[in-house]
Amino acid sequence: MSTTGLRRSVVLKRRPSGEPTKADFEIREDSIPHPQPGEVVTRTIWLSIDPYMRGRLREEQTYAVAVQIGEVMTGETIGQVVASADPAFEPGELVSGARGWQTHSVSPGKQLVKIPKGKAPLSAYLGVLGMPGATAYAGVTEICKPKRGETFVVSAASGAVGSVAGQLAKRAGARVIGVAGGPDKCLWVQDSLGFDDCVDHRSMNLRQELHAACPNGIDAYFENVGGAVQAAVFDNLNPFARVAMCGMVAQYNEKTMPPGPNLGFVIGKRVLIQGFIVTDRMERFTEWRAMAEPLVADGSLVYREDVIDGLENAPEALSGILTGRNFGKLLVKVSAEP
Amino acid sequence: MSTTGLRRSVVLKRRPSGEPTKADFEIREDSIPHPQPGEVVTRTIWLSIDPYMRGRLREEQTYAVAVQIGEVMTGETIGQVVASADPAFEPGELVSGARGWQTHSVSPGKQLVKIPKGKAPLSAYLGVLGMPGATAYAGVTEICKPKRGETFVVSAASGAVGSVAGQLAKRAGARVIGVAGGPDKCLWVQDSLGFDDCVDHRSMNLRQELHAACPNGIDAYFENVGGAVQAAVFDNLNPFARVAMCGMVAQYNEKTMPPGPNLGFVIGKRVLIQGFIVTDRMERFTEWRAMAEPLVADGSLVYREDVIDGLENAPEALSGILTGRNFGKLLVKVSAEP
Repeated sequence: MSTTGLRRSVVLKRRPSGEPTKADFEIREDSIPHPQPGEVVTRTIWLSIDPYMRGRLREEQTYAVAVQIGEVMTGETIGQVVASADPAFEPGELVSGARGWQTHSVSPGKQLVKIPKGKAPLSAYLGVLGMPGATAYAGVTEICKPKRGETFVVSAASGAVGSVAGQLAKRAGARVIGVAGGPDKCLWVQDSLGFDDCVDHRSMNLRQELHAACPNGIDAYFENVGGAVQAAVFDNLNPFARVAMCGMVAQYNEKTMPPGPNLGFVIGKRVLIQGFIVTDRMERFTEWRAMAEPLVADGSLVYREDVIDGLENAPEALSGILTGRNFGKLLVKVSAEP
Repeated sequence: MSTTGLRRSVVLKRRPSGEPTKADFEIREDSIPHPQPGEVVTRTIWLSIDPYMRGRLREEQTYAVAVQIGEVMTGETIGQVVASADPAFEPGELVSGARGWQTHSVSPGKQLVKIPKGKAPLSAYLGVLGMPGATAYAGVTEICKPKRGETFVVSAASGAVGSVAGQLAKRAGARVIGVAGGPDKCLWVQDSLGFDDCVDHRSMNLRQELHAACPNGIDAYFENVGGAVQAAVFDNLNPFARVAMCGMVAQYNEKTMPPGPNLGFVIGKRVLIQGFIVTDRMERFTEWRAMAEPLVADGSLVYREDVIDGLENAPEALSGILTGRNFGKLLVKVSAEP
């Protein structure tokens, strides 16, 4: 456990216009910090890359704080304690909760959560057992509430959130239709995740194909992308449909937002549209992790990871997740697992 | 009580294009019907005119059945029993539940609800104590859920639904802002209904005026109109805002629906948008009527009626309600009260 040496951080150089590029960030080097009382220094092993990060790069914010120019980019990590001035943590322990695109972080110990050893792969705590998994759990159980025999649609179905959402809806007995980008993802969604069907949103005939895949209409929709997929799904909603609004990644690089759906159908069909952010109810994390750990261990909850090596490649990873270049939960491997 | 003589009915002649006109309907005369076993014949006293009726004139329907060409136009009424072949009803009794733009209706007795004598004015059972009042009650208590100190906005604030919705939100302790068309309505909303403020949607500066009237943002919105008012309200919604989608009368005469709001804000602000139709839960009617009768009787629940004389004027009344020419609950007086 070394706390001497250099730390590398990815800081925001300028606000991206459209798709973020490597040139919007720069690498800063400084010394690995020493912990003040109550603080813990961790070595980052895994860094999670998630679509919401694009929002943090905007000046205007709705619920969070923007990353400022010159600041370290924010993000969930899994790390190992290298120095601790909090008696609750010892060097060598594995934790989640330290934030930032950097090789070493200093955090108040009370922000960190220990990761149990040997229950699941370490990286899973950033995906299926982490924020994306808990997001899927909250949206499916609190908003979509799929029932046996109903039709449930999820967009970005091969992604970290969508793949879990669809599997939860399958467990509830729903007919589950994924929407994903490209034949490889669609095949995996059907064959490995066990969804009943998957529609390629790049198809020229998205509307017709979605309609054909949902002959009885759509009772619940887990929204991750917006845009043309949203329009096609909304056309097929059944009376009393529930829409969990989790993300609209299709427009995250847009400067001005395109118009959306005329909401007349919401009245006639008594549709529920509910936005949510999983961090509003942190107790759902703990609940989900405890519930899902055995399902990951026994292989009954399937997930897929897309690993990029090296912190310096995090900006390109973010750019890729916004245009669907990743296939599965996107992670940056910052340093070796112990 | 006469059951001989002529009955007049307003039937649909052709589907209106845009604003409905008198020429889209025609008067049909036939004999006053005799009741078959289980049926009751009523003489219509009051006919309710409501914005939803425009939807029934469209070929395509989402939740109801279209009025067909040559069919009697549908609508809630208060009537008096003139002949009964249902032992539960006697001539002379006053009832709601018979439907149609006609001087006499024949209905299954089980569809009718008796109106108590002397508890409230007869016409109130079509407005504040009827479907519009129950609609306001359902939307406010089940969706908007205004809390003390919150800001509640209702559009079509001087109308049958909006006036009740705002008064209920006031009772819940919210700061209530109405949106209405023209200075007379706005004054009445403030002075007689006791709302905290009322914004004129015809103002050139709707957005600025609404923003100024809601300095702490908007926590709950009862939507009756759509269009520019909806856009202005959505711009001012607070995190965790609730939107009860009751009507979008601004577009009921449109052939093709204009685009709506980009729904990105729903996620960041965790907004709930919920469509509802009060007839989905008929028990709410009874509940509301029992609760509101004493409030109408003691004058603490304020309402206003706009009465048009004569069944033949019902088409023009409908046309007027869609463009806001009425001021208060719109009713057609079809025949004299007993």
